[in-house]
Amino acid sequence: MARRAAVADLVDRARRGEHLAVARLISLVEDGVATSGGGQLREVAAALAPYSGRAHVVGLTGPPGVGKSTSTSVLVRALREQGRRVGVLAVDPTSPFSGGALLGDRVRMGEHATDDGVFIRSMATRGHLGGLAWATPQALRVLDAAGCDVVLVETVGVGQSEVEVVSLADTTVVLLAPGAGDGIQAAKAGILEVADVFVVNKADRDGADQAIRDLRHMLSLGDRPAEGGWTRPVVRTVAARGEGVDDLVAALDAHRHWLDEAGERERRRIARAESEIQAITLEQVRSRIGDLRGVHGLRELARQVLAGDLDPYRAADQLTGRAGSAGASGPQA
Amino acid sequence: MARRAAVADLVDRARRGEHLAVARLISLVEDGVATSGGGQLREVAAALAPYSGRAHVVGLTGPPGVGKSTSTSVLVRALREQGRRVGVLAVDPTSPFSGGALLGDRVRMGEHATDDGVFIRSMATRGHLGGLAWATPQALRVLDAAGCDVVLVETVGVGQSEVEVVSLADTTVVLLAPGAGDGIQAAKAGILEVADVFVVNKADRDGADQAIRDLRHMLSLGDRPAEGGWTRPVVRTVAARGEGVDDLVAALDAHRHWLDEAGERERRRIARAESEIQAITLEQVRSRIGDLRGVHGLRELARQVLAGDLDPYRAADQLTGRAGSAGASGPQA
Repeated sequence: MARRAAVADLVDRARRGEHLAVARLISLVEDGVATSGGGQLREVAAALAPYSGRAHVVGLTGPPGVGKSTSTSVLVRALREQGRRVGVLAVDPTSPFSGGALLGDRVRMGEHATDDGVFIRSMATRGHLGGLAWATPQALRVLDAAGCDVVLVETVGVGQSEVEVVSLADTTVVLLAPGAGDGIQAAKAGILEVADVFVVNKADRDGADQAIRDLRHMLSLGDRPAEGGWTRPVVRTVAARGEGVDDLVAALDAHRHWLDEAGERERRRIARAESEIQAITLEQVRSRIGDLRGVHGLRELARQVLAGDLDPYRAADQLTGRAGSAGASGPQA
Repeated sequence: MARRAAVADLVDRARRGEHLAVARLISLVEDGVATSGGGQLREVAAALAPYSGRAHVVGLTGPPGVGKSTSTSVLVRALREQGRRVGVLAVDPTSPFSGGALLGDRVRMGEHATDDGVFIRSMATRGHLGGLAWATPQALRVLDAAGCDVVLVETVGVGQSEVEVVSLADTTVVLLAPGAGDGIQAAKAGILEVADVFVVNKADRDGADQAIRDLRHMLSLGDRPAEGGWTRPVVRTVAARGEGVDDLVAALDAHRHWLDEAGERERRRIARAESEIQAITLEQVRSRIGDLRGVHGLRELARQVLAGDLDPYRAADQLTGRAGSAGASGPQA
């Protein structure tokens, strides 16, 4: 009970904007992943449930070297100038040495370090991608509960991680930069499809105009927005000099407005909650079955399969036993 | 009932060594993957259950171009000369055009086409790797039930597929060839660790002696067999000329003998059955949860999470409902 009281107290303090409480809750969420059963993670999730759903979650993604961290930093500055409370989650699943990423982000985010209206967190990877999948949605809820108007989720790297961030974000920003075949790389990684807003950063470089033309051409071929649909904008920025950042903020606000008007925000959030519940369910079942290894149940079924008394499908039926009809019976409130 | 009778009849005929029945059963197993619920797959699995566990399952793997198919073909010949019944499963998960692979294997295996004691099957990939995971263990059981003394499972390609074959095989053979950094590639892919027997094929080529020395050196550093343990042999072959193939057969038989003596075969087969049951269980749960999408249960829970009335972990508990304690309660025989 002492622990539960502690979590509730932390949530109260986080809601009042206490940075230490926010940091502590995110740590609990991260640690909860590592512990079997994820006790603290569950407690924090339960305590946060009533206080989330307000923040505009913006995912920033793109190939390495396009200036995601710099863009994030100037976005924070622009949003702060408007008096908005901002959270930043820097997610770096590709680096096994999260310590380095953490340090790097802190340095880049240094100018915001003393600002009470900014919450910055580098998510450690705990050595496996899976952990992020559990911790990140809850970390988002912590920042949401802390009263952030906007939460920026920045992924460093390419690949699967983008897909996860997309499923977390209300608005997904894909950053590109001229040269180095970034556009092609991005297209290959499938991240063009998931963008709500495009940014061509480093737009003062050679090839920027061409990159923007290519991108607009590609979009003109693929995008066929229905009546009342969303036409994906291409924003030019030179983040290092703060150029174009106001345009980006405007594009984010326009998308947020469209999401609300079109009922799309609700639809996306429901889909996201469904995915999250589904993933947790599977993980719970997986860990329960994993726990059975070497214990009576699974081993005995395996022996029966070996003896030819059972086939593996009927063995699985017996293992899931009562799980077998859980799907059909629906929730029991 | 007609269908069930048909499957039982096919199994009877397969056990008498009828090639057509064997082929038909493997087709049913492959098709079962594609159909929702996998009805025929389950039926075949149930009908085969009493008749498997006899065959020595040998996995052959290694980087492309080392001569896996040629080695498989000469192994078949050598085993047939000893009067043993042989099955071959050629698994090519890297090629989306399984038709080509099938044809190629048939050509290479042409000399065995009219031999009643040889069963050769190219496993189609059905466009996704996952399908193989379900079909291959059952296809193995078909060949086992058909009285094969040895079943050779050949994977074409590198990557994850090796790991799957390893988990299917009693004995895993890793083939390497001199030059082209094959050894390094293999080490990177992690397949050195899983080998029970090494083959350096194309041993008449330049660099063969060096490759064998390198490999033996690597093994001398890493392998510390306990008393009664297995010392992994390195067999030299020139498969295209049939050289060294008797040595390979002897190495396979020695490993099979060791597996039996050390109780290791039983241990591996139980671990394999456990993995299979676990994978089927997860897939069953996953597909049931998948079915719930868009239906009352999951959607309603997602809405409650959005409203802040529920956190996603408690939502998952409600979704699994009766599944929650299935793990702890064990099998219900």
